[in-house]
This record gives sequence, C-alpha cells and structure tokens, in this order.
Amino acid sequence: MGHNIGIIGTGNVAWHLARSLENSGHIISTIYDRNIDKAKKFGLDYFNAVFTNTLDFRNTEATVFIMAISDDAIEEVAQAIILPDNTHLFHTSGTKSIESLGYARTENIGVFYPLQTFSKGKQTDLSRVPFCLEAETESSERILKSLASSISKEYHFVDSRQRAVIHLSAVIACNFSNHMMSIAKGILESNDMNFDLLKPLIAETINKALAIGPENAQTGPARRKDLKTLDKQLHSLESDESLSKIYEVISQHIIDYYSE
Amino acid sequence: MGHNIGIIGTGNVAWHLARSLENSGHIISTIYDRNIDKAKKFGLDYFNAVFTNTLDFRNTEATVFIMAISDDAIEEVAQAIILPDNTHLFHTSGTKSIESLGYARTENIGVFYPLQTFSKGKQTDLSRVPFCLEAETESSERILKSLASSISKEYHFVDSRQRAVIHLSAVIACNFSNHMMSIAKGILESNDMNFDLLKPLIAETINKALAIGPENAQTGPARRKDLKTLDKQLHSLESDESLSKIYEVISQHIIDYYSE
Repeated sequence: MGHNIGIIGTGNVAWHLARSLENSGHIISTIYDRNIDKAKKFGLDYFNAVFTNTLDFRNTEATVFIMAISDDAIEEVAQAIILPDNTHLFHTSGTKSIESLGYARTENIGVFYPLQTFSKGKQTDLSRVPFCLEAETESSERILKSLASSISKEYHFVDSRQRAVIHLSAVIACNFSNHMMSIAKGILESNDMNFDLLKPLIAETINKALAIGPENAQTGPARRKDLKTLDKQLHSLESDESLSKIYEVISQHIIDYYSE
Repeated sequence: MGHNIGIIGTGNVAWHLARSLENSGHIISTIYDRNIDKAKKFGLDYFNAVFTNTLDFRNTEATVFIMAISDDAIEEVAQAIILPDNTHLFHTSGTKSIESLGYARTENIGVFYPLQTFSKGKQTDLSRVPFCLEAETESSERILKSLASSISKEYHFVDSRQRAVIHLSAVIACNFSNHMMSIAKGILESNDMNFDLLKPLIAETINKALAIGPENAQTGPARRKDLKTLDKQLHSLESDESLSKIYEVISQHIIDYYSE
C-alpha cells in the first residue's frame, strides 16, 4: 500500500529516498526547504509535488514526513513543524537519537536511516541497502517497516545506541578508507604518476576483504613486521608531519593488532 | 617466444607468477627453496620442475631467474647465487632497489614487480595487473618486456625511486584501508552486530572513489566539519587510546585537506 509522503529537505539523501519511494508506488506530495527556490525546483521539476518554505503542513495530504536535513537542524525543525493529526515524523540521520524528535507534536516519531553514501546525479540501487529503523510507537513501526521493505530487501530495527555504533564503524571503514585513497593519489601525482596505476590493486583489496574478512586479508610491511621498510617509508614522509603521524599510528596499530 | 624460467622462492608471489607465466607459454624448469620439502612440493606437485635447495644453477636450462622471496633475503641470495652465463636475474619487490641485486655475478639484473595482492589458493587474474619493470641492460629490458606483456596488458618501466613511491601509495591506499575495515568489523562485533551490514556501503564507497576520484567522493562528519559528531564519536572511543589517536589524526587530516 502506497503512502502519501512529505519530504523535508532537498539534498542528496532527500532526492535518492524520494525517488526510490516514488518508484515503489508511494506518492511524494509535499516538499519543504527553507529556501523556496530549492523547494520549487525539487518539488516541481522532479516530483510534481506541492512545495513550501513554511513548516505548517496542516493543509497537506501527506501522512508520513521524512526529514533528510543536516543533523544540526533536526531538533529545531522538529520543534517548529506543525503536522496534521495522526501523522508520522521520521529522520534519516545515523548519529542523532530518536529523542531529537521529542519536541515534535506527535508521538509517532522514528528513524529511517539508509546505510549508504549518496552522490548527486548518480542513481543508487537501494534494493540491497540496509535500512536501520527505530520507532517510538507500534504504528510508526508498521509504517517504517512498510516503507523500508518497499524499497530494500534488508532492514533492521536498531536502537539509537546501536545506530551510533554502526555510524562510527561506517565512518572508519568508508570515510577513512576513502581518505587513504586521496592521500595515495596525492603522493602519486606529486611524483608525476597516475592514480590509475593503483586501481586494480584497490579493487582486489576490497574484494578480498569482503570475501574472506579484512582481518584475514591484511598484507604489507606492518603486517609482516618489516621494520626496515616501515622505517624507510616513514622517513620518506618526514617533510609532512601530519602524514607521518598517520603512517605511524596506523602501522603501529596493525603491528599490535596481529601481535595479540 | 617462451622463456625457460627458474623460480627462487615458493610463497604466494612465486606461485601466482609461475602459474601465470606457465599458462602464457613459458617453461618453469627449476624451483629453489632453502627448505627442500617446500621446493619439492612446489616443483613437483605444481610445475613438474626440477627442485633444489642449493643456489648453484650452472646445470639448469633456465635463462631467466625470478626471485620471489622476502625483501630481507634478496641481497644475500643475489650474492650467493651461481648462474649460468648470459642469464638474467630479476627480483619482484616493491621496495628494494635494483642495486640490491648488484652483487650477483651477472650484469643482466632487473625488477619484475606486479602491483597486486596475492592470496594462497585464490587465483588472481593478472591480465590487468600493472607490472613495474626496471632493467640494468638492454637485453634485460627486452626480456622483462616480453615476460610482462605475455601475462598482462599493462606494464611500465619505472626507476627504483618511483617504485618506492608506488609501493608507499599502495600501502596507504590498500593496506591501511583494509585495516580500517578490520577496526570497523571489531567495533561492530564487540557490539553484537555483523560486518555484513557495512558491505554494501563499502562496495559503493570504493566504486565511487574509483569512478569519480576519492577526493571528490569524500563524505562524513570530518568532510562536513561536523565538530559535534566528531566529538561524540571520539568520546565513544576514549577507552581505547590508540584507536582514539587514529580517529583524531585522520579526521584532522580530512578537515585540513578540504580547508586548503
């Protein structure tokens, strides 16, 4: 059964979720952004929805409101929003607890957090993205389950503490790994070489980590406790203090990890 | 034209290179390991080759000798090896310079470094693996080119300094990224959650980094300079000093990287 949905926010997460929900038979009827031009572009051009820059939704048909806005704005918007009776308000943040919606004048609050990274323009297949859900009421639990299962094969009910752990692990596994690749690219390019050189190795590294577990796939000088190579590489970075520090603490962590 | 090849070493790199070279029409005629049982198993069971634990190769038919042994052993073996006249000696290390073969009694020395990670048992497709080559003589250059092009579409002649830069960038992009995944897995499991949860996100992160460049794909609290979340996550790690340090230095590096 399709739901009538209002989307609060017009960023990447808003766009990807709204698009997937629409494709799964739900109606995106209302779009809010505090910037009316963004609301208009998003609402009219993409979804043929009503657009607004005020948080009074009493005259809309939506029964579910999904906030896809910056973490810092969630509490403020929850406090200011005026919802029709018996409607639901969910946020999509990995870090904010369900209580951050506590000021909203509805008890039907919840969390609808897709564990994925979204880029502008690049359509992402959400069907295998795990959704982390949390509900305050049984009614919200049913709605969240029906929304998540309509666009993905995988969803989990987790509490706010568990979601914070998941988000932390995602930051380390994904954001930090990605930055390691940026650093490597910079080192290659400042020596007139191309990042393309590393791509087959990176692809195979990830395939291996996902297939046999990263702890079984670890290679390299720190894993081998090859102190000569570690010293040589650290020495080659000595002109860059913060990069040296990164090299040192991660290498030491690898050595200790496999010594235990 | 196929070459007659002797392999010095019986580890992962030795196995994968020997297998690929054999599949490309070369002959693996001799296997050396200082441990005769390993030499026998590798030589007889896998390649139907002569096996030995002495470094005197004057009676063998091989004209190319490839050393796939630990970095620390390269100079010692180069010094001890007795080669037939007019034969070639190459090592496969990312970190050791070509001069580490300088004591060998042949001028035909070189480097045959596959930029890839190898695991026991898991056959790796080498056809898209970049080979980093370096030769001391024109004759060795020809041999290296013919070996590399017979098993891969991509090879580059780089000097020892460039190869050290490539190896450093590979350690950072691959070994360090892999360890980030190990850390994340540990955090999830110590909170009774499963690493599988992160796999779609990790796969998409790497796809994006390879497609649009990691510096354009960066997301997360440090990229957004979301100090509240950074503080909260750092605080949640405070019982683990070395992990806190890793979180701190990488996050700070991301902030600085995008402030420049």
